[in-house]
Order: sequence, then C-alpha cells, then structure tokens
Amino acid sequence: METINVAVAGLGRIGKIHLKNLARNFSEIKVVAAMDVFDESKAIADEFNVPVFVKTFEELLDVPDLDAVVICSPTDTHADYVIQAARAGVQIFCEKPLDLSLERVQEVLEVVKKEGVHLMLGFNRRFDPEFKKIKALVENDAVGDPQIIKITSRDPGPPPVSYIKSSGGMFLDMTIHDFDMARYISGKRVKEVYAKATVKVDPEIAQAGDVDTAVITLTFEDDSMAVIDNCRKAAYGYDQRLEVFGSKGMVQAENNFPNNHKLYTETGVSGDLPLHFFLERYDASYNQEIREFIDALVSGSAMPVDGEDGLISIAMGLAAKKSVEENRPVKMTEILA
Amino acid sequence: METINVAVAGLGRIGKIHLKNLARNFSEIKVVAAMDVFDESKAIADEFNVPVFVKTFEELLDVPDLDAVVICSPTDTHADYVIQAARAGVQIFCEKPLDLSLERVQEVLEVVKKEGVHLMLGFNRRFDPEFKKIKALVENDAVGDPQIIKITSRDPGPPPVSYIKSSGGMFLDMTIHDFDMARYISGKRVKEVYAKATVKVDPEIAQAGDVDTAVITLTFEDDSMAVIDNCRKAAYGYDQRLEVFGSKGMVQAENNFPNNHKLYTETGVSGDLPLHFFLERYDASYNQEIREFIDALVSGSAMPVDGEDGLISIAMGLAAKKSVEENRPVKMTEILA
Amino acid sequence: METINVAVAGLGRIGKIHLKNLARNFSEIKVVAAMDVFDESKAIADEFNVPVFVKTFEELLDVPDLDAVVICSPTDTHADYVIQAARAGVQIFCEKPLDLSLERVQEVLEVVKKEGVHLMLGFNRRFDPEFKKIKALVENDAVGDPQIIKITSRDPGPPPVSYIKSSGGMFLDMTIHDFDMARYISGKRVKEVYAKATVKVDPEIAQAGDVDTAVITLTFEDDSMAVIDNCRKAAYGYDQRLEVFGSKGMVQAENNFPNNHKLYTETGVSGDLPLHFFLERYDASYNQEIREFIDALVSGSAMPVDGEDGLISIAMGLAAKKSVEENRPVKMTEILA
Amino acid sequence: METINVAVAGLGRIGKIHLKNLARNFSEIKVVAAMDVFDESKAIADEFNVPVFVKTFEELLDVPDLDAVVICSPTDTHADYVIQAARAGVQIFCEKPLDLSLERVQEVLEVVKKEGVHLMLGFNRRFDPEFKKIKALVENDAVGDPQIIKITSRDPGPPPVSYIKSSGGMFLDMTIHDFDMARYISGKRVKEVYAKATVKVDPEIAQAGDVDTAVITLTFEDDSMAVIDNCRKAAYGYDQRLEVFGSKGMVQAENNFPNNHKLYTETGVSGDLPLHFFLERYDASYNQEIREFIDALVSGSAMPVDGEDGLISIAMGLAAKKSVEENRPVKMTEILA
Repeated sequence: METINVAVAGLGRIGKIHLKNLARNFSEIKVVAAMDVFDESKAIADEFNVPVFVKTFEELLDVPDLDAVVICSPTDTHADYVIQAARAGVQIFCEKPLDLSLERVQEVLEVVKKEGVHLMLGFNRRFDPEFKKIKALVENDAVGDPQIIKITSRDPGPPPVSYIKSSGGMFLDMTIHDFDMARYISGKRVKEVYAKATVKVDPEIAQAGDVDTAVITLTFEDDSMAVIDNCRKAAYGYDQRLEVFGSKGMVQAENNFPNNHKLYTETGVSGDLPLHFFLERYDASYNQEIREFIDALVSGSAMPVDGEDGLISIAMGLAAKKSVEENRPVKMTEILA
Repeated sequence: METINVAVAGLGRIGKIHLKNLARNFSEIKVVAAMDVFDESKAIADEFNVPVFVKTFEELLDVPDLDAVVICSPTDTHADYVIQAARAGVQIFCEKPLDLSLERVQEVLEVVKKEGVHLMLGFNRRFDPEFKKIKALVENDAVGDPQIIKITSRDPGPPPVSYIKSSGGMFLDMTIHDFDMARYISGKRVKEVYAKATVKVDPEIAQAGDVDTAVITLTFEDDSMAVIDNCRKAAYGYDQRLEVFGSKGMVQAENNFPNNHKLYTETGVSGDLPLHFFLERYDASYNQEIREFIDALVSGSAMPVDGEDGLISIAMGLAAKKSVEENRPVKMTEILA
Repeated sequence: METINVAVAGLGRIGKIHLKNLARNFSEIKVVAAMDVFDESKAIADEFNVPVFVKTFEELLDVPDLDAVVICSPTDTHADYVIQAARAGVQIFCEKPLDLSLERVQEVLEVVKKEGVHLMLGFNRRFDPEFKKIKALVENDAVGDPQIIKITSRDPGPPPVSYIKSSGGMFLDMTIHDFDMARYISGKRVKEVYAKATVKVDPEIAQAGDVDTAVITLTFEDDSMAVIDNCRKAAYGYDQRLEVFGSKGMVQAENNFPNNHKLYTETGVSGDLPLHFFLERYDASYNQEIREFIDALVSGSAMPVDGEDGLISIAMGLAAKKSVEENRPVKMTEILA
Repeated sequence: METINVAVAGLGRIGKIHLKNLARNFSEIKVVAAMDVFDESKAIADEFNVPVFVKTFEELLDVPDLDAVVICSPTDTHADYVIQAARAGVQIFCEKPLDLSLERVQEVLEVVKKEGVHLMLGFNRRFDPEFKKIKALVENDAVGDPQIIKITSRDPGPPPVSYIKSSGGMFLDMTIHDFDMARYISGKRVKEVYAKATVKVDPEIAQAGDVDTAVITLTFEDDSMAVIDNCRKAAYGYDQRLEVFGSKGMVQAENNFPNNHKLYTETGVSGDLPLHFFLERYDASYNQEIREFIDALVSGSAMPVDGEDGLISIAMGLAAKKSVEENRPVKMTEILA
C-alpha cells in the first residue's frame, strides 16, 4: 500500500487535535502539509514535524501528491474549502457544520458528488467509546426497538457572545451534535421537531437573538421519539448523557469522570465532577474518528459519517429554530423537501 | 387531645395499605369503621381489628363520632363520596383523581369549600423520602433556580384494557402523578403543555382510544421547563426517576432497589432490578402521606396537598390530551380559565 | 393453630424493637407480658397494649401459658435467664452473647439441651435483606467456592468507656457479629484466628484494657480465608459491607443509604452518608429475625441460629483476644476443645 | 537545554510500552538505541524510528552520548544491567524487582550510590491517576491519619507455572506492587508482616512451591495497619482497588471500567467488567511514570521512586514468605537489619 499524504487546514483547538492524532498514531499516512492564517501556528506544525506550512487553502491544495485534507478552519470557510478540495480531487474530512445555509450545503454536496470524492463530516461523538457501546447494544437488540431516546447535553459555560452571533445559534452550533446522535442511535428518519427554548444563562444571548436553554422533542418515522435537553451553562461542568429506552430494556451512558474515587467524610459522600469539557471528554473520540476516516480512505469503503448526515443535522437545527419562533411542531418536509 | 375517629372507604390495594398504616402506626387515632362493596373485604377489616364493616358509604358516614374518612374506592365514586362526606362535616383524604371531568371537580371543590372541611388529595409521591430529599435540596437553593426538571416514569406493565377504557387515559391515570411532581418541585405555575404520544406497547390500547408512550414538555410561568417521559411498559420494571437542573447545579433521584449488591462474574457486573411496582417502591410514601394527613388534622393546619392540586393536575392531563389530538402546545388558560 | 404466648424481657433499645415487631406484625402470637427492672419501662409495654408488666424474670416466667420468651436484658443476665426459661420449658430467643465465659456458655447450652427447649441467638445481621441476598447468591454457586470473604464493620462512635469495661471487649461485643457473618457466609468451620489490633480512637479505651481498631484474619478448614476490619469510630458513620470472592466471581454488599440522590455542584458530586447506626441500618433484619423465630416455633423446625452459633462466635472472640495478646495466630482448638 | 539521549533495554510487553511513550510524548529526549536478545524485536525499534538496535547490554552502553537507560529486560538481568549502567555513568530507570536476593539488591544500591547516578524503580501504580488522587487526598488530610489501608489486588489469571518458578513467588512478583502502594499511601515505616496464604487456583502452583491466594496484614510504626488480599485468578478479570480509612473519613478508589454504561433488562441491571489487565488498566500510569523519570532527569531532582523503595518492597516480600512458612508475624528487622 502506498502512503497516504494528508494535509490539515486550520490549527485551532480541533485542528491541533487532529494533527496530533494523524502525526502520532498512523504508519500508513504522512502529514505532508498544514495551513493556518496565523503565522504563529507554524510552531504547531513544527512540533509535529510537518514539512510544509502555508497560509492559504490554495497553497495547501498545491502541495504535490496530496491525497486527503482535514478541514478544521472556521465554519464560514467550510463550504468553499470543500468545493475547492473536491474539484482538486482530494478526499475530504470536514468539521461540522458544512455551512449555516441549507442551500449552500446542498450546492456543496452536489459538487462533492459530481467530483466523486469522499467527504466525511466531523460528528466525533459517534466515535466515543461510551456511545459506541450504546450503539452496539442497540444494534444487537439488547433493548429491542428504541421507543424513547434521551440525550442530556449541557456545556460548562457559553462561548463569547461575539462567537454566538456568527455561530448560527445554539441549535446549529451545539444541538447539532445531539441531532446527529439521535439519528445515529435511532437509525430512523426524523419526521418532526418541536423545540421549546428560553434564555436562562445570560440576557446578552437573548440580545444576540439566540437561546441558551432548550428541550427538543424529535419524532421519528415510526413514531418513536427522542428528547434532548440543552443548556449553555451547567454549574458542575460538562454533562453528556445518553439513554435508550426500548421494547426489551433500557441502556444508559453515564458521564465520564477523571477518576472513580469516593470520599466519605462527616458531611457526606463525594467524588469529582465529570471531565471538564469536550477536549477532555471526547479525547478518545477524536482519535477514533480520524482513524476511521483513514481506514475508509485506505479501504475505499464508505465514510462512516457522510455529507447527507451533515445536511440533515443542519435541517434539524433550522426546524428547531422555526419551531421556537412559531411555537409549534415543524415537519422536516417543511425544511428539506 | 381527643382520639380522632377515622374510617376507610374501599379496601382494594391502596385502601388496604392506608388501613394498615392507620391501624398500626398511630396512637392518636382510632379506625372505627371500614367500607367496601365486596363481602370478602370484611376479612381485611377484621385483620386490623376494625370494629365496624359496612357496604355503603352512607352507612359509613352514619358511624357515630366519625371525624375523618379516607376514600380509596374507584375513581367514579370519588366526587360523590367527597361531597357526601363534606356535607356530613367529615374531614377527607381522597385518592387521586377527584374526577375525570373538570366541571365536576370544580363543583366538588365548591362544596368542600362551602362546608369548611379539609380535603387532602393522595399524591403520595410527594411524601417519598427520595423525592422529599430533592424537594428539600431545591428549597435550600442547592441547585439554584430550577431550569429543567426531568421526570422519568415508566410502569412495569399496562393495566387491563378494560381498566384503561374507564381510566380517563394515560395522562389522567398515570402522568397525573408526574404533573403533580413537576408542580411540587418547581413551585411555579404551569402555563403550557406540549405532549407527543404514541402506542408502542399494545395495539389494543390504541383501539381503546389511548396512548402508552409519551414525551411531555411543560413550560412554567418563568419559562423554565419540565420534561416527562412515560411508558406503560418497561421490560425491566418500574422506573421512577427525577432530575432537577438549576442555575447552581443539578440533583438526581435514582431508582430504588431491593438491595445494593453487585455481582462480578465472567460475563459482567450485575445487580437486581429496581423495586417492582408502586406498592414496593412507594411503601414509605403511603405511610408518610397518611401521617401528614393525620398531623394536619390534629394540628388544624393546611393540608399538604389540597383540592386545587387535584384540580390543576387534571387540567394538565386534559391539556396533554388536547395537545396530542391537535399536535400543538396547549395553554393552560385554554383548559382552566 | 393455637396462639403462641410470648413475653419480652428487657425493654431497652433492642427490647423495644422486638416488642414492636412482635406486637404489630403477627396474628399468630400474643405478647402476654413484658419485664424490665425500671418502672418507667411500663409505658413502653402499655404503648403496645401488653397486658402484664413485671420487674423480675421470675414473675415473667410465672405468667400463665407462656410459650416463649425474648431475652433482651443486659448481657450478664443472659445465662441465668436462659437457664431459668429452659427449666420452665419455655422456648427462648436470646440476644448475643450468651455470656462472656466460655464455660458458662457451655453450661447453659447443656441445660437447654437437657430440657429440650429451642434456643435462638440474636445474630440479626443474618436476616438483613442485603446479606441474605449475598448468602443466597453464594449458595446458588454464583461466585463458586468462597476463597476470600471480606467484612468491613465500623461503628459511628464508641460506646461509653463504662460500657466497654463490662462488654468483654471489642471482639466479644462488636466483632462477634462479624465472626458470625463470616461463618454464616462461608458455611465452613473456622480453624484459626489472627488478630492485629490497636487503639486509635480514644486512649481511655486502652486504659480500660480494650482495643478500638483491628484487622482479623480467619482461616477456614479448607484454607479459604476471611478478613474483617473493625473500628469503633468512623467519622462518616456506620460502615457495614461484605464481599465474597470465589472461584467463579465476586459479590459485594454495599452500604445502605437513606436515599440514592446525587447532587452535582461546582465543587463535586455528592450524596448522603450511609444509614446512621444499627437501629436504622438493621431495622428490616430485626423484623425478619423475630419472624423466623416465630415461624420456627410454629413449625417446630430448627432455629435458624442456635446455641452452638453463639458458642463458636464467643470462642472466636476469645481467640482474637489471645491472638492480640500473644501476637500470633491462635487455633480454635486452643479455645474450644 | 540539551536533548537527553535515552536507550531502552528489553522490548517485551513493558519495554514496548516505555518505548512508545518515550518515542511519542517527549520533545526533550531522543530514543537513540534499543536492545533485545531477539532479532525479531528490531521491528519494534523500527516502528518507532529508533536508529540503533543491538542485542547486548554492553553494546547498548557503547552508544555514544547515552544519558539514560530504561531497563525492561527479565528480572534476573536487572542487577547486572543496573551495575553496568551505573559504572558507565548512565542514569537508570529499572523495572521492579531489582533482584530476588536482598544481599544482591543491597550490593547494587551501593554501586549506584558510589557512582552517583540516579536510579528510579518502576512501581508504575504510584503514577496511576486514580491512586494519585487518593494519595493527594490523604496528603491533604481529607481522611485524617490513616488507620486502615485496604488493597484488593487480583489478577485475571496466573502466569505460566514456568514463569512462576523463576519469579520469586507471588509475594515478590505480584504483591510487591501492593507492598509499595501500602508504603506510598501510608508514608510510614512498616514494622511487621503477617501473611496467610494458600493455593486455590491451580495445584501446579503448589507443586512449584508457591501460593496463589493470600491475605496479608501489615503493621506500620504507628500501629496503623494495611491489609492486602491477592489472588492469581479472578474470574471477572483484573481487580485493583484501594481504600484508606482514617480518623476523619474514608476514601475509595474503585476499579476502572472500559465504559460506564448500565443496561437494564428483564433479568437485572448490568455493565461491563473492569479493564482487562495491567496493560489496559495502568496505561496512563506507564505514561506518567516515564514522564516523571524524564522530568527528574531534566530538573536534576530526586527520583519519585528510588532504590530504597525497591529494597524495602523486596524485604516485605521475603517477610511475607517467611510469615507463611512459619505461620507467625515477622518483624521487618528480622529481614532487613
């Protein structure tokens, strides 16, 4: 087998994780180049012995013999970069979301299809060992037909309001992971979304036109349901749980903790808080995600998360926004014909 | 202090529990009479040394010096019995619901008010030690302002379809407890109900015009939310959990188990299922409930659960039914002016 | 079946529990008399409608048609009372220990045997639902042959030093329960005891000639082992755990808690302490213990805990004392020929 | 700072782990050479781009500018290699135990001392996040003065009998980790060892002159105690727990699991077994251990585990063997003057 030449675009928090995993854990690939708009990011590329560092995506695609690119740049560059990479015949891993506009996403997916390249979307939670276990149990019929899927997803704190303004709002920025998880676990098509949301964390979020606390009910094509609850700020940190209730039983994925100790004192029994935030909590998932991307490239098999997964999760986010605005359940066909 | 003379009407499952607790755990009261339409129930009365056994509520109210009555007869007798007892000047404990018709409940409450007797409704879960602990923590500001209340409430199996037909449906028969719990924990007024429901357990339930699986979103006056999920059948038994997420933290009440053992074998780590059903799970709550009823009688203080609590929970059930029928959120003011 | 007439001797903490359970939970017996040296205890007898209250054991045995007696008086009266009751042909339940002198215990057991009455010893923990579950799993071969039994047994605080002085010391007063539990779970004969002990809680306990902290290793006839750790004071309350490690697996009985809530705040995850002390923790066991005594009386079957169980546990306590004094393993045959 | 040149001797299971961690996680060092007696091990060296592969320790020490060596070869080579490395002025990390003979260990330590090199012993469990947390809590006085330390340490299965024969026996091969853990957590000097042991797993282990199941009681200089229980085979896998009971409370380190899921079905609640064996369970500890070795080299500070730690743990193992042979507590001064 030939070595696969990979480049990384964007060396922010997520880009650095992907670069580290690509550089350290694979013998079948070579990280041939990295790109970032900031000069200082060259130090990161150097740390992992990446031979080429460039500042534009065009230059990155010009690197000779490039096979695949991992796109971790800001959301508003995703659509352009994916189109450019597809036209250059380069295989693509792209962080979610592809774009905040459904039309733009559809346009991107058409180009990808036409050019015949592979595109994988970065829904890393699908690769988390805890949730993979749940998925495997569901697939092995351990709980029978899923009837109610419950997802708890709360952040330790909100991002800056400046970020929120350009993020597309909580449903497209944060809940989008939970939408994908619900679809992943259920395996069924979502037909309706009802979202109830408010602002409890910070009034500035309301001024920015967004919400920070929500309960979302999804209805699947077989009338089974999922319920997601979100908050931008949980005082106790990152809260990521999943429960699947089915005809034969129920399975829960609990939070992950830095350790399992229990301390008994005069005042009670106590232990540590869950792992702080996504970098700690989903460390293994990022590793596994990029591994499955490389494996799919090597074997030529289908990507484990594809463009349509990206499209549908965005449509769900838009449905949730509409549902809150109009305080009514919104059919997915209203959003995505 | 004078001894309080108490009678029990209805010696079914719940009636027997109340009779046992009344007969065994109080020195300040005397169970002077019991009533049941079935002759065989006399044996139950005898077991607890109840001196008088009658077959009609009229005869029960004729027992001399009767102070209070505990009504555990079928739902369709509640309204009549409460009115009769109120007119006889007897203090009343009545199992939920008061009636399935909102108008009839309002009529009953007016009579109770006019006659000046006390009426306590049997929302026993408020007296469960696990949920009382949660309530106390919420009141002590341990989790700050509640933002999302989550109630999981699933039965080990559905009642007979014949029962379902006369029960008023799942929302009025089963969810009514969860509606009351949400109000109890929140302390806020509910302004809107959205219910999504389906039939997953038994098609005959659909034929009877009812649902067996539901997710219900409540919105309180301050825009905080509660989400309830119900199913008439959980393969693993009775599932009764409560979680309160607030501005300062989160508290969970887990299921109660018959024991805490953990068995490690070659195939995994295992333990017993939760306590089987409401008689086992809420044993302590029934005891405490009747104790607080007697305490309120003795001290003359307000009943811990009153007629209005009964009224509102029924209105919530009716709102949920309407929400499912019309697939839209229903304002409480549409139901209860 | 004839009603069994039962009397209770000693209305201290344990006596009151037994009286309550006898008075409330049985239709097949009648509590005909109670005895206590203190006049004030008559109020307790009255509370449970016991018709006769006396101040001496002789008077108690004179009650007509007495079938059985439950002895809960101070330890130094046990031997005398058991002998008197046996000679009166009355069936006997006696709290542990029978006596602090092995010779005296043997003498008592000979009288019991000669008179042909039943004697049950009050090792209530055998009747605890948590430990009964463990026993059942062990008997059902869920963990295979027991190889290491681990017992953690720590009190929330030491008794008064005055009590300790007359208690026979920690091994005969506190560990005796754990010795019995080890034998009960193992089902094997103990052949050797090694105890290492010190004073960590209160120097006055040392001055009283006793220890307050210990680790005891038991060796059974098949060379399997048990290890017990004790302390007279655990800052966090009553700690009662049991673990059985065998050829096929392992089973643990965890502490019992007043509730299962978990509170997540900025500082960590916390919950309540275990149930405070033996009255709370072993409430169900006292109930079940006396039920099995009555059941054995009614059916005429063997007592679930008999005089030999009492004898051996005392011998083990004496072996442990000797082991500490001489800092060497002590064979049971050195104590009990 | 200069780059530190490190070599790895022995590329078995542990050697490979250390090589991987050294090669991937440090920018301040360079792995300049590896040694193994088997030709096939060259592939491992190649995988991590180690430029030099040799088959003898002499050749390894001849590598120019070598600063430190990590010794992971079989136990019977440890003493020779450490002496050679010390005489060559190379800093040393050595897997436990240094040797099975106390005299030989003392000889080695004298050479190390004379040559003035650093020596760190591979007690990796000290670097486990779970146990480090316990140590930190103990040091921060969260449980007060330790009174009873409890260590459960059971393997999923015994090594081959051929290995056992040359291992020095269970106490020197397996329990040695627990001896070190007890000392690490306590911070006190051990004064006495009592071990009770038997063969329950495999009669061939008895024929090889060893035991496979044991309970060991340690007494520290302040009369506080530790109790260790070991078995070569736990049907449910690797069981590694630690509990510290002190004057102010108690802290437990639970087993680590591959995930936290709970599955509820008709038959009970279940979850996965603990992480399979030491490679999985102590993965993070190996990483952290070698990091602290490198950090100590770089900073010139004292090694976190030194030669004396190695010496004492071996002496404790010898005391335990003697205790079993003579069935009596053995003072540490009998072993190590």
